[in-house]
Amino acid sequence: MKVFMIGEAANHKDKLAAFLTAPCDIVPLPREAAHSSGFDSAITADDVVVSLRFSRRGGAMPDFRLLHVPGAGLDGIDMASLPSGVSVCNVFEHEIPIAEFVIAAMLNWEIRPDALRASFATDTWSDVYRARLPHGEIHGLTLGLVGFGRIGRTIARRAAAFGMRIIAVDQFATDADGLAEAILPPERLSDLLAQSDFLVIACPLTEETRGLIGAAELAAMKPTGVLVNVSRAPIVDEAALFDALRRRTIGGAVLDVWYGYPAGADDRVAPSRFRFEDLPNAICTPHSSAWTTRLPERRYAFIARNINRLTAGEPLLNLVRAPAVAPQPAIQNTSIP
Amino acid sequence: MKVFMIGEAANHKDKLAAFLTAPCDIVPLPREAAHSSGFDSAITADDVVVSLRFSRRGGAMPDFRLLHVPGAGLDGIDMASLPSGVSVCNVFEHEIPIAEFVIAAMLNWEIRPDALRASFATDTWSDVYRARLPHGEIHGLTLGLVGFGRIGRTIARRAAAFGMRIIAVDQFATDADGLAEAILPPERLSDLLAQSDFLVIACPLTEETRGLIGAAELAAMKPTGVLVNVSRAPIVDEAALFDALRRRTIGGAVLDVWYGYPAGADDRVAPSRFRFEDLPNAICTPHSSAWTTRLPERRYAFIARNINRLTAGEPLLNLVRAPAVAPQPAIQNTSIP
Repeated sequence: MKVFMIGEAANHKDKLAAFLTAPCDIVPLPREAAHSSGFDSAITADDVVVSLRFSRRGGAMPDFRLLHVPGAGLDGIDMASLPSGVSVCNVFEHEIPIAEFVIAAMLNWEIRPDALRASFATDTWSDVYRARLPHGEIHGLTLGLVGFGRIGRTIARRAAAFGMRIIAVDQFATDADGLAEAILPPERLSDLLAQSDFLVIACPLTEETRGLIGAAELAAMKPTGVLVNVSRAPIVDEAALFDALRRRTIGGAVLDVWYGYPAGADDRVAPSRFRFEDLPNAICTPHSSAWTTRLPERRYAFIARNINRLTAGEPLLNLVRAPAVAPQPAIQNTSIP
Repeated sequence: MKVFMIGEAANHKDKLAAFLTAPCDIVPLPREAAHSSGFDSAITADDVVVSLRFSRRGGAMPDFRLLHVPGAGLDGIDMASLPSGVSVCNVFEHEIPIAEFVIAAMLNWEIRPDALRASFATDTWSDVYRARLPHGEIHGLTLGLVGFGRIGRTIARRAAAFGMRIIAVDQFATDADGLAEAILPPERLSDLLAQSDFLVIACPLTEETRGLIGAAELAAMKPTGVLVNVSRAPIVDEAALFDALRRRTIGGAVLDVWYGYPAGADDRVAPSRFRFEDLPNAICTPHSSAWTTRLPERRYAFIARNINRLTAGEPLLNLVRAPAVAPQPAIQNTSIP
């Protein structure tokens, strides 16, 4: 069995190899192999492909055993053209760093460690100590989660340990997992907005969620409420958010996701029509929340263990498309002896 | 019944009043009332005193029912001179903000949100996004707690929710509370030092713990290990710590407690003989970890509820000194009829 690692995935060859138990050749392929048939002759029915993207732009696809996407999103995969015998799996693990980022954002909003650090100096210590200003706590505050899926629950598990009160809005989730005080349907979003000290966007961008938080929703937030977006920017109306922050009708925002992204290597776009980073009550970061060194370590360890399951004939984890069952050899229509 | 609130405690009169159920007069007294007998004539056997400090410098103490210290430390109370009928209670609640401060310190060490924020700008966005550097996670790292008491456990409960591995050294604690993988005796401190990604000092300063972390202990830490001190500075040797940070034999330190404090209103001292704040791998804050607006709210609510228990004849919470039992009236030595 060979494992073809295409494009960026090939950078993580050693991480994969460290966890593979069955002998197999790992073959790095260049980025073009995701869309070009030029490398297909090497791929056989026994093999595995690891790639974020896979299509043949209308041409014939090679046949193989497993396409393992090294991320959660399947938007780079031409699922319809993939031979029916190919299993497709994905991998998560980004909920851990995203949850750490969100909890850090809430703690830092209350504690303001930068200001504490800036106030410390040997020469002024005695006066600073005597005049220390108290800061805030997240204990007892209300966390409102828009979305109670994998990411929302991972945030909630940590927030609960801090003694935060947790409420969520989710269209599908019903099990509060012992974490949320209530999971409200989308039509009760206004209840969540009115109660949340921190409003965290943790739902996917869909046609239903695009622009979900507009001017009216921002106006329904507490005047001290802080919006944290680690999902997709267009869930929150760009102009309405800028206006609410500029006019200080909400407490602030922590924004890690943006309205414009560069498409190619030389593309230059603005993250937003507005300069959010000039607002003192906006904390802006460059889509960093999940971007950790450990994320690929965990992801490729997961993929290796899934390949081990494949070679051992065990069921695959995170199977997003099962292979079609191979047709049974036709039984000859003979009379039973 | 009257409740005398002395010095700083008097600032929190309204917080106390909000939770008292029995009618009683709250009487603010100036700071001098902690050590002067000039106000004692108003204090009767039925009353309560709330004060961080109480002594008569050798003179006679007034007799009353309950001295409630609005903090954990009893070093300001002349316990020996206090009439034997006075109950003494204290109050904690600072473990919550201290734990939040410690978790924030660890998250910020790994995520470096300041650097992420500083890298975000509309004009350079496209290049910054393409060249994003990955950061760290606390998930899976080892937290070594020196001290597994009230503060250590409050930190551990939060750290466990992040998937940190927790080990502790404690002289007395045996119950890991389902949080620590191991509680080691003090003679196994070196095991803790060698394994900890974050070494958090969470023990009291005693003759045993003064200088507990010296040059040899710092040398036994991981080269990437980060020391976090939210307890008392002299538990860590001042010169050895400065040297380890300067020579980068440890990863860094987050220091909220210091070697010198101003004693009076006009006193001027240095926090340390060394300028820790000039070291890039030292995060220095002015004894702020517990200093939140909510701390006195929780503390005075607790004190009010304890006073409610006193008036209702229920047992007091956080009783650090029970009153001596009043001598029974002597039974006359008469022959039994």
